[in-house]
Amino acid sequence: MDFKIAVLAGDGIGPEISVQGVEVMSAVCEKFGHKVSYEYAICGADAIDKVGDPFPEKTYQVCKEADAVLFSAVGDPKFDNDPTAKVRPEQGLLAMRKKLGLFANIRPVQTFKCLIHKSPLRAELVENADFICIRELTGGMYFGEKYQDNDKAYDTNYYTRPEIERILKVAFEYAMKRRKHLTVVDKANVLASSRLWRQIAQEMAPNYPEVTTDYMFVDNAAMKMIQEPAFFDVMVTENTFGDILTDEGSVISGSMGLLPSASTGESTPVFEPIHGSWPQAKGLNIANPLAQILSVAMLFEYFDCKEEGALIRKAVDASLDANVRTPEIQVAGGDKYGTKEVGQWIVDYIKKA
Amino acid sequence: MDFKIAVLAGDGIGPEISVQGVEVMSAVCEKFGHKVSYEYAICGADAIDKVGDPFPEKTYQVCKEADAVLFSAVGDPKFDNDPTAKVRPEQGLLAMRKKLGLFANIRPVQTFKCLIHKSPLRAELVENADFICIRELTGGMYFGEKYQDNDKAYDTNYYTRPEIERILKVAFEYAMKRRKHLTVVDKANVLASSRLWRQIAQEMAPNYPEVTTDYMFVDNAAMKMIQEPAFFDVMVTENTFGDILTDEGSVISGSMGLLPSASTGESTPVFEPIHGSWPQAKGLNIANPLAQILSVAMLFEYFDCKEEGALIRKAVDASLDANVRTPEIQVAGGDKYGTKEVGQWIVDYIKKA
Ligand SMILES: CC(C)[C@H](C(=O)O)[C@@H](O)C(=O)O
Ligand SMILES: CC(C)[C@H](C(=O)O)[C@@H](O)C(=O)O
Repeated sequence: MDFKIAVLAGDGIGPEISVQGVEVMSAVCEKFGHKVSYEYAICGADAIDKVGDPFPEKTYQVCKEADAVLFSAVGDPKFDNDPTAKVRPEQGLLAMRKKLGLFANIRPVQTFKCLIHKSPLRAELVENADFICIRELTGGMYFGEKYQDNDKAYDTNYYTRPEIERILKVAFEYAMKRRKHLTVVDKANVLASSRLWRQIAQEMAPNYPEVTTDYMFVDNAAMKMIQEPAFFDVMVTENTFGDILTDEGSVISGSMGLLPSASTGESTPVFEPIHGSWPQAKGLNIANPLAQILSVAMLFEYFDCKEEGALIRKAVDASLDANVRTPEIQVAGGDKYGTKEVGQWIVDYIKKA
Repeated sequence: MDFKIAVLAGDGIGPEISVQGVEVMSAVCEKFGHKVSYEYAICGADAIDKVGDPFPEKTYQVCKEADAVLFSAVGDPKFDNDPTAKVRPEQGLLAMRKKLGLFANIRPVQTFKCLIHKSPLRAELVENADFICIRELTGGMYFGEKYQDNDKAYDTNYYTRPEIERILKVAFEYAMKRRKHLTVVDKANVLASSRLWRQIAQEMAPNYPEVTTDYMFVDNAAMKMIQEPAFFDVMVTENTFGDILTDEGSVISGSMGLLPSASTGESTPVFEPIHGSWPQAKGLNIANPLAQILSVAMLFEYFDCKEEGALIRKAVDASLDANVRTPEIQVAGGDKYGTKEVGQWIVDYIKKA
C-alpha cells in the first residue's frame, strides 16, 4: 500500500509521542514494503497561539487529503477554569470530528497481564475484561442547538434516524467480528432521544441474528462496568453517555496510558491515544508512547493490514515483558526508560523481527 | 416532636423493607418521647395496576400533608424493554420529585469496615472513602422539552439561574458541615448549561471562603471516583450527570444494599434506599432492610434529631458486627438472617439501648 498520513501532534506531550508513532509507522512500512509519506499540521492550543484557530482550514485540508490521521493530544491548562474564553483547544477536536464526519469513536478496553496490579479494581474482576466501547461522536448534546445568557442556558440532545442507524451498524458489525454480544446503552425510561435509539436498535437487531443484543440503562452500565467488566463485549451509546462511559472504562484496566482509539466515519479516519496532553510532563521524555504506538496498530488494522498490526502488538508486549517501560509502569527496582528509548526499542524489535 | 410520616412502600421488596423502616421509626420515637403517626399510600407499578397512575393525586396529598415521606422502591420488569408503554412506574418517581419540588438528591457514599472486601475496588482505595453526591433532581434533560417521532427525537437540557443557585447552596452548606471541600462537576468545555453552572458556582464560592471549591469535568469525575474515591468530600452536579455518578459512587464501597438517600426541596422531604425494587426477591424475606433503616436515620438527622439518628447508626453497626446479616453480606459459615430478623434485632437493640 501507499500510505499518506496526516500527523497532528498538538500540545503538551503530543509532539514527543507523535515522533515515536511516526517512527514505528515507518519501520512497519519498510518491513512490509508499503510506501508512506507524512504531512504535518498544527492543531489545539498550539494552533490557537499560532493562527487563532484550534483546527485551521489548512489542517483540515491536510487531513482530508490523507488516508489517515495520526493524532496525539490537545489541551493546555491556560484555557481551563475560564468560562469566558472564546476559543478553546477542545473546539478544535469538535471541529475535526464534525468536519471529517467522525461519527464513530472506537475504544478497546484491554488489560495487559503485567499491569493488572495497576488497576483500581480487584484483579479477579479485570483479568478477563476485553471489550470495546463505541461512542457516537458527532451528534447529541455536544452539537445540538445551544443557548446561554446570565439567567438560563440549554443544550439540545438531538438525534436523527440516519445518525443512529449508521453508528448502530458499526456496533453490530464489531459485535459480529468479536464475541457477538452487543450492549446498547441508553436512558429509554426517561429520554425521548433514548427511546428512538432503542427503537431503532430493536428494528435492526433481527438483521444480526447471531448477535445477542441487550439494552441497559446508562446508570446501570456505569455500575456494571465496575462490578463485572468481563460482562461486556461491544457497548454502544450516544455522545454524552459515551464520553463518560469510555473514560470510566479506560481506568478500570489499569492500562490507561496504553489505550489507543479510532474515530471513523465519512472521511479520513483518525487514530489517537485516549490519554490527554499531560502538559506537566511536556519535554521531560517521561510520557508513555505505547498508546500512540498502538494507535498505529489500529490504523493498520483499519486498512486490513492485520499482520502489520499484529507485529506492533507483539513488539509492545515484548517491551513490557522485557521491562522496557516508562516510569509510571516500571516495576520496583527496574530501569526507567524514556519516551524515546521505549519507542526506539520497539522500532528495533520490528526491524529485527 | 410529633412526626406525621407518609409511607410509600411501592413494588417488589418495597413492602417488606418498608415494614422494618416503620418499626425502627416507632422504636426510636418511643425511646425519645416523640409521637409518630403513619399514613400509607400507593405508588409505582402497584398504583398503575390499581388506579392506572404511578403517583396518584391521593398519594400526592398524603405526601404533601406529611412531615416526611418514607419511600421504599418502585419498578417492575413487565415495563422494561417496551419503548411503547405509555405509563411506567418511573414516571411516578419523576412526578413525585416534580410535585414535591425535590430538587436535591443527597447520597452519602459510605464504607462499612466489615464490607470492604465486597468492594470491586482494591481495599486500600476505598477504606477512607466517605463522600456525599448531591444531584439536582427536578431540572435538566429529564424534565426539559422533549420530542420524538419515527425519524428524529430530542431532549432539552434546560436550567435557570434560580434552579442552579438553590442546589449549589445546598452543596456549599453540606460542605461547610463536613470537610469543607466541594467539587462541582460539569462539562463546561462543551455545554452551555454547564458553563452557566460553573459561572454561578464561581460567583457563589466567595460567600463560602472556608470551602475549597474545585471544578471537574464529568468524564474526569467518572474516572477519579474509581481511582481515588477518598479525594471527594461533597460533589454536586446536574440531573443526568448525577444519575450516572451517584450510581457509580454507590457500587465502589461494596455496601450498595446499605446506602440510604434523601431528596429534599420545597415541600416534604423523601427518604429512601438507593437500591431498586429487586422483583426477583419479592416475598422471600431475603432483602437487606439496612438501607431503608438508615433512611430513617437520615430522616431524623434532617429534623436535627442527631441522637436519634446516631442510635440507629449504632444499632446497624452492632448488627453487622454481630453477624446478624442478610444472605448477600453474610460471612462464610455465618447464620443467615431474613429481612424481618435483621429488622427485629435492630428494634430490640434500640429498645434495650
Ligand atoms: C475535550 C472534550 C471535548 C472531549 C469530549 O468530551 O469529547 C474529550 O473529553 C474526549 O472524550 O475526547
Ligand atoms: C428510574 C429513573 C427515572 C431514576 C432516575 O434516573 O432518576 C433512577 O435511575 C434513579 O436514579 O433514581
